[in-house]
Amino acid sequence: MQQVYFDNAATTQIRDEVIDAMTRVMKANYGNPSSSHSFGRSSKALIEKSRKAVAHYLNVSASEIIFTSGGTEADNLILLSAVRDLKVTHIITSKIEHHAVLHTIDQLVKDYKIAVSYVDLKPNGNIDYLHLETLLKNESKTLVSLMHINNEIGNVLDLKRVATLCKVNNALFHSDTVQSVGHFKMDLQDVQVDFITAAAHKFHGPKGIGFVFVRKNSALKPLIFGGEQERGLRAGTESVHNIVGLETALKSAYDNLDNEVAYIKDLKQYFINKIETELANATFNGKSGNMEKSTYTLVNVCLPIAPQKAAMLLFQLDLKGIACSKGSACQSGSNQNSHVLAEILTAEALQKPSIRFSFSFYNTKEEVDYVVDVLKAFID
Amino acid sequence: MQQVYFDNAATTQIRDEVIDAMTRVMKANYGNPSSSHSFGRSSKALIEKSRKAVAHYLNVSASEIIFTSGGTEADNLILLSAVRDLKVTHIITSKIEHHAVLHTIDQLVKDYKIAVSYVDLKPNGNIDYLHLETLLKNESKTLVSLMHINNEIGNVLDLKRVATLCKVNNALFHSDTVQSVGHFKMDLQDVQVDFITAAAHKFHGPKGIGFVFVRKNSALKPLIFGGEQERGLRAGTESVHNIVGLETALKSAYDNLDNEVAYIKDLKQYFINKIETELANATFNGKSGNMEKSTYTLVNVCLPIAPQKAAMLLFQLDLKGIACSKGSACQSGSNQNSHVLAEILTAEALQKPSIRFSFSFYNTKEEVDYVVDVLKAFID
Ligand SMILES: Cc1ncc(COP(=O)(O)O)c(C=O)c1O
Ligand SMILES: Cc1ncc(COP(=O)(O)O)c(C=O)c1O
Repeated sequence: MQQVYFDNAATTQIRDEVIDAMTRVMKANYGNPSSSHSFGRSSKALIEKSRKAVAHYLNVSASEIIFTSGGTEADNLILLSAVRDLKVTHIITSKIEHHAVLHTIDQLVKDYKIAVSYVDLKPNGNIDYLHLETLLKNESKTLVSLMHINNEIGNVLDLKRVATLCKVNNALFHSDTVQSVGHFKMDLQDVQVDFITAAAHKFHGPKGIGFVFVRKNSALKPLIFGGEQERGLRAGTESVHNIVGLETALKSAYDNLDNEVAYIKDLKQYFINKIETELANATFNGKSGNMEKSTYTLVNVCLPIAPQKAAMLLFQLDLKGIACSKGSACQSGSNQNSHVLAEILTAEALQKPSIRFSFSFYNTKEEVDYVVDVLKAFID
Repeated sequence: MQQVYFDNAATTQIRDEVIDAMTRVMKANYGNPSSSHSFGRSSKALIEKSRKAVAHYLNVSASEIIFTSGGTEADNLILLSAVRDLKVTHIITSKIEHHAVLHTIDQLVKDYKIAVSYVDLKPNGNIDYLHLETLLKNESKTLVSLMHINNEIGNVLDLKRVATLCKVNNALFHSDTVQSVGHFKMDLQDVQVDFITAAAHKFHGPKGIGFVFVRKNSALKPLIFGGEQERGLRAGTESVHNIVGLETALKSAYDNLDNEVAYIKDLKQYFINKIETELANATFNGKSGNMEKSTYTLVNVCLPIAPQKAAMLLFQLDLKGIACSKGSACQSGSNQNSHVLAEILTAEALQKPSIRFSFSFYNTKEEVDYVVDVLKAFID
């Protein structure tokens, strides 16, 4: 049966060269990076080389990169330590952040009695920048946590604008960039964000490894305590093979960026055109139908299907070998509806099924044709 | 040059079948386990199969196993949540626990103002069980955190005795079993410990993956918040290949346990004999010289070398291709002395260099001969 993987915002296929690099490391470099003997030093050297490479692509220094077990841990580290150690008492965020941010903030409210403000959202899923500015006029020590690219609707935050607003108002700025690292060029000298987070499995690397960028002279402290790994900011024996996998994946991503972006953009445009011509009354959620104002990697389509039939849609797509998603991956298991769409869609639109299709360079136009045909057959 | 890896308590060489299994998973199963489509389900199935296998070897149920990014995170999760969610206000531990336990407790003291009691230690490194009993006579809600096998001196805690003491006194019991899982048979129906922790890289599995056993009906909550992974106890996309690597390594460890234990025991006995006959005045720290009362995997030797010469010892061993360690791996980098030996040795003994040699089934008697020869030459 044909298999189509259109769920690249949930996770991506690992590149061959990444798997090869990881396998080599597991075979040849098993020393503990904290050990001072030659076995340890060669593992340590691999990690530091990876750190340098990551720093290079973001235009920061290696000491500003801390490896974590993924995007979620990275978000948790920053949010917790901002409150506990940097004495943040007020967080400004939005209701359409990833749960790694929202649920962590919920816990911080319980444990530290911080205040939380949610910035207003427009129906298109963008934040209201003027409201953000108002919220920033505040005496409390404030952290702004707003994601760069929304993982469900693909909206793009104006990072530089928010960073500037934060600077002017003396607030710290964390951006969850899990959906943009490896997909967009980043220059963190140009954009004065304080903290960003990433996960390798979103850019064709391994699962269970990510990093935070922590701008120099921040007084961040660990989420996980123990040994002195990662300059004392993240204890635990490093996952050397995973770190090398992250590096290799990031290198491949940025070395091939122009070509791959062009390829995937073309595919997305093709998908949008096809939907528009073949499925009357389908609409695009958030900004995802706008090639200029959303990420090139995904669309979120609201389909003209009645509720009773909609229940069968994902099931039917799965039967046809098509992988896509209702909300974010962490929700599809729990069968809940998307908290993101719940915030921005009308009650009427929420009645209809919305599906996120997300692409990579492994996908083809033939796959788009197939998927739209299946959708069409289901709707007719 | 000859290379001898005698630092298996720091980390171990990954078994070939583990690397093969991980590589296969990375190639064939890249779906996100939280996704409901077929790609996701097959990743999910791998994780649940691994969880079942781990549970089987410990004689617990699969729902009691939560995967983490390693032993350190596992210890942090239990200690933090015991205090924050289970309302523990008093922790009993010892001064020779791993830093993943000690430093986490230090932070909990700051954040939650809990009380900490350190159980007395005998000069041989064993805890004073009678003192533990006295400490347990206490009205506060108490957690005991004592490791099963000490990673530096190999002393073995009587898990069952401590578990019974805790039950009788209504205390919770956490044991860091990072050095014993995969090395000793465990039956957690027989031993009523509440929480144990493990790290795959200590039993020839990959780095960056471990687990906690959390006995049923504990109200533990996450350290890392976000998605609903790991039954809501550990958010973040699962490191599927690492989990399968952990499972494969644990299976190999337990399937070959009798043979491998016999082989390594014989090696350790050989090492001890050789040291005793060749190096007059060398002594064994903790219980590590006692084959019955310490783990079969390591010895910690105090060498008759003057301080000014001692500084060169590790350097010299490294030059000769010998990997071993001064304290635990996380310390060797920082050039600090062992906090474990500092607690149990006399001031005089602390003047002399102590080295931990730790073994695996990959080691040979020829390697022992070589190492003792090098030591002898250095001392003479
Ligand atoms: C925007 C965003 N943030 C955070 C995460 C969490 O990353 P991970 O699952 O690797 O911990 C994800 C993906 O799951 C994401 O899309
Ligand atoms: C007894 C003990 N506990 C905890 C750890 C921490 O495990 P990890 O480094 O995998 O996080 C180690 C080893 O480093 C250990 O020996």
